[in-house]
Amino acid sequence: MDERLKRQLDFALEIDKEKNVLRQTHLSGHGRRENDAEHAWHMAIMAYLLREYSNEPVDIAKTMLMCLIHDIVEIDAGDTFAYDTERLATREQRENEAKERIFSLLPEDQKTEFSALFDEFEAARTPESRFAHAMDNLQPIMLNNSNGGTDWAEHGVTASQVYWRQGSTRPGSEKLYEITDAMIRENIEKGSLPDDR
Amino acid sequence: MDERLKRQLDFALEIDKEKNVLRQTHLSGHGRRENDAEHAWHMAIMAYLLREYSNEPVDIAKTMLMCLIHDIVEIDAGDTFAYDTERLATREQRENEAKERIFSLLPEDQKTEFSALFDEFEAARTPESRFAHAMDNLQPIMLNNSNGGTDWAEHGVTASQVYWRQGSTRPGSEKLYEITDAMIRENIEKGSLPDDR
Repeated sequence: MDERLKRQLDFALEIDKEKNVLRQTHLSGHGRRENDAEHAWHMAIMAYLLREYSNEPVDIAKTMLMCLIHDIVEIDAGDTFAYDTERLATREQRENEAKERIFSLLPEDQKTEFSALFDEFEAARTPESRFAHAMDNLQPIMLNNSNGGTDWAEHGVTASQVYWRQGSTRPGSEKLYEITDAMIRENIEKGSLPDDR
Repeated sequence: MDERLKRQLDFALEIDKEKNVLRQTHLSGHGRRENDAEHAWHMAIMAYLLREYSNEPVDIAKTMLMCLIHDIVEIDAGDTFAYDTERLATREQRENEAKERIFSLLPEDQKTEFSALFDEFEAARTPESRFAHAMDNLQPIMLNNSNGGTDWAEHGVTASQVYWRQGSTRPGSEKLYEITDAMIRENIEKGSLPDDR
C-alpha cells in the first residue's frame, strides 16, 4: 500500500476513538450519555436540514465537514463541559497538542486542510463556522430539553450560564436563537432551570 | 414556532434514536458494539478523506449526506447483519415502511429529497452512491481487521461471504477494493477467516 493511503487509513482508524469520548448530554428518552461522534453526526445532519436559517449563505459541504471533525481533538484532550470554568482555562493548550498529534497522522496537505478547518471552527469568524457553532449549541439543548432539562439539574447549571453559552448561536442564526430563547424561558418557567439573571 | 421549523426539529429529535441501533461491528481496541450513528459519522469523514480514490468524480456534499442518513430507516427496521439471509429477505419491506414514517416527519420538499437520497444509495447506480457503498463496506472491515477479525469469528462468517459483501466496493473504488482484498487475504492466512472459496 502506498504511503499516502496508509496515512489516511491510520487517521481513519485513529478517529474511531472519538466514539469513546463521553459528553454531559444524555440521549433523548432519558438515555445514556452521548459521545462526541454521535454528537457530530447529529450536528452535521442538522446543519444540512436547517441551513435555510443561517444568517448568511454557507458552503454546506464545508459546514458539514466542520461539524464532523470539530471534536476530534477531544480524543486526547477530553470533553470540556461547557460550564466547567476550571477545565475551560486549560482547554486551548490541551486541544492544540491534540490537534498537532492527531492531524499529523494525515498526509501533509490533508493535515493542513483539517487543521485549518478546526481553527476556523474555533475562531467562529466565517459564515460556516458561525452556523456550525449554532448546531453545536442547538443539538445538545434540543436533547436536554426533550428530557426536561435534567442535564442542567445534574450539574446545577443556571439560566445565565445557559444564555452565556447559547448566545453564540445568534451570530450563526437569529431564527434558531429565537427558538432557543423560547426553550430556555420555558424551562425557567417549569422550574427546571434556576433563574439567576 | 412556524410549522416548517417545527417539523424539521421533530425530525432532528426523532433521528436521535439511531444512536440506539447496534451493529455487529465492534469498536477498535476490542471495544463495545458500534451503533448506526457512529458508523455513519465515520463513513462520512472517510468519504471526504478518501474521495480521491473514487472511480468517478463525486459531489462530496451529496456523498457525505448520503453516508450520514443511509441507516436512518433502521430506527424502525433494525440493523440487518450483512450475512443474515433470513432477515435480508424481509429487509426491503421493513425499510420502506420505516422510510415512509420517518421522512414524513419532514416538510414535504425535504421528505422528497431525503427519500430520494436514500433510494439513490440503495440503488447504487450513481457515482456518489457507489462510493458511499465503498465506505459502508470499508469502515466496518477496517475496524474488524484492527480487532483481528473477531466479528467474523463470532458469527462463523467465511471468506466467500466477505468477498460477496465487499465486492460492492469495487464499482465505487478499484483502489480501495485492492486494499480490502489484501486485508481479507491477510485474515485468511492468519486463520481468522475460514477459506471456503
